[in-house]
Amino acid sequence: MYDLIIIGAGPAGLSASIYASRYHLNHLVLGFEPGGTISWAHKVDNYPGLPGLSGRQLAEKFLDHTKLLGGKVEQKQVVGIEKTTDGFKTLTEDKQIYESKTIILATGTKRRELGVPGEKELVGKGVSYCPTCDAPFYKDKTVVIVGGANAACSGAVHLAKFARQVYLLYRRNQLRAEPTWLEEIKKTENITVLYETNIKTILSNVQVAKSEELKAQSAKLKTIAQSGKLEDTREQVLMVELDKEFEGSKYMAVEGVFVEIGGAPLTQLASKLGITLDQSGYIVTTENLETNVPGVYCVGDCGSHWQEVQQVITAAAEGAVAATNIYKYLHR
Amino acid sequence: MYDLIIIGAGPAGLSASIYASRYHLNHLVLGFEPGGTISWAHKVDNYPGLPGLSGRQLAEKFLDHTKLLGGKVEQKQVVGIEKTTDGFKTLTEDKQIYESKTIILATGTKRRELGVPGEKELVGKGVSYCPTCDAPFYKDKTVVIVGGANAACSGAVHLAKFARQVYLLYRRNQLRAEPTWLEEIKKTENITVLYETNIKTILSNVQVAKSEELKAQSAKLKTIAQSGKLEDTREQVLMVELDKEFEGSKYMAVEGVFVEIGGAPLTQLASKLGITLDQSGYIVTTENLETNVPGVYCVGDCGSHWQEVQQVITAAAEGAVAATNIYKYLHR
Repeated sequence: MYDLIIIGAGPAGLSASIYASRYHLNHLVLGFEPGGTISWAHKVDNYPGLPGLSGRQLAEKFLDHTKLLGGKVEQKQVVGIEKTTDGFKTLTEDKQIYESKTIILATGTKRRELGVPGEKELVGKGVSYCPTCDAPFYKDKTVVIVGGANAACSGAVHLAKFARQVYLLYRRNQLRAEPTWLEEIKKTENITVLYETNIKTILSNVQVAKSEELKAQSAKLKTIAQSGKLEDTREQVLMVELDKEFEGSKYMAVEGVFVEIGGAPLTQLASKLGITLDQSGYIVTTENLETNVPGVYCVGDCGSHWQEVQQVITAAAEGAVAATNIYKYLHR
Repeated sequence: MYDLIIIGAGPAGLSASIYASRYHLNHLVLGFEPGGTISWAHKVDNYPGLPGLSGRQLAEKFLDHTKLLGGKVEQKQVVGIEKTTDGFKTLTEDKQIYESKTIILATGTKRRELGVPGEKELVGKGVSYCPTCDAPFYKDKTVVIVGGANAACSGAVHLAKFARQVYLLYRRNQLRAEPTWLEEIKKTENITVLYETNIKTILSNVQVAKSEELKAQSAKLKTIAQSGKLEDTREQVLMVELDKEFEGSKYMAVEGVFVEIGGAPLTQLASKLGITLDQSGYIVTTENLETNVPGVYCVGDCGSHWQEVQQVITAAAEGAVAATNIYKYLHR
């Protein structure tokens, strides 16, 4: 019987573990992605005291600190939580059961998808949700990245270091990233921003071959490829259909489509437990980060507290506050 | 005309500057104690990602990060803030005036005093509010430290590395520090905890010389001094009068009295501006960290938000949130 099980191993969950260790709470972190979403950021410059690290490096610092204080992290997917008479049973994918008196949900978000035809089928074949991970595969190629907030803008800057040309597509008429990123985009010659532009369909080269218009568009890229440093990457060419014309066509031939349009809170476990969500689907908490189910707390990007400032520093602070309140909860 | 003036240079104020720099806000930090209260902690082990630093080292990391991103910190005491038609005028001790559109109050706390006779007069002559700073002066001596929360318990552990004997005096029947510190205290042989014990008076050796009983008590310490490694430190001997007996006397002869009973929020500047305080004297804010005066935000230990979890990580998160909200405030 643990005092506490923390579900999620991102900055919020790991900070909760660091504080739980300081409070001598017998606890365990269960998370299928140690480091969480931040691991995929190519640079984090705003976690006070640790500037200029990659997301992966910052995540490692959190993991090292967690383990240094005795926190245990098991890399496992949680598939269910049940209420018992004196606490909770947490079930993992490998059919293990963990009992605890309290729970911290730090499940974070999953990437939002465009939801357009072709997207699902072409994941891993040109469609990616992670510029940081996949940018090196697009050396000297042409890519599109969709989005307008920090992740999309920093992703575009990162992609531009590898790709020949980056098109940043945003549905609104103004990007909404931090000015630092906007300035980087301005300074980067091989980024072109297309405002009020959306992708309607993503087509593979098999589909392109069936249409004369698409074949002609696709040939344009091939010409560039032959005249420049590009190999003949025809196998990987995708065609995106836009909702408005760009350079005389609604079709654009690219080799990669990156989607960076934010995250949706992961709240299935919470819903099944009867935890209240807000209108946007985030887990509702008090300022003390308690949910409506006694003994269950929620921290980080899946929760409603400071939902408009989803940062490593705020997630970590919430972890500390929830662990502190659980310590009080268990001692009253 | 600055976009923002941040008053206070502790973790909350510096984090606000880091975020303000990311948002390209033209801003300035005014603080008479760069690093803030944390500078005096002998060890901080719970700021996620940076374990095992001294408070001073952690404060330096925050300052370096602030400056790296272009934030300017002026080491000055602010003496007043005035509302103008389009913002605020901030006055410093050197009669400079700084104008800004918005303000972040990150003024922190001042040390709480015991308020007993002798305390004020003997500051610097045996009475101290900073175990970290002054512990080395008490090598092989006998000291009392008053308090029962984290600062007092960690202070006692730190003092015990220098002093011959440490008496930890607490008014309640149970310490309320993190278990990590309680265990350290248990393990440390030269710490004795006296529960439900308060100091009534602190007497100097001049006053002691006037009373036969006190002279006898004082002689006890001198005997110890002569039998052990102690020098004759008679000049510095203090006598504390307790509200109950310990080892047959209400008087205790010591060489140092450390007071670690927490902080009181520094809110004079806020009060004069008409900002609402709560019953405990903290500045009331919304969850977005705005005060009741538009354009004035409050972060860190002086504010009501998460007032029961006054940590570096929560202060830093609040700085980030306030700067983010000010960025939105200035752009709407």
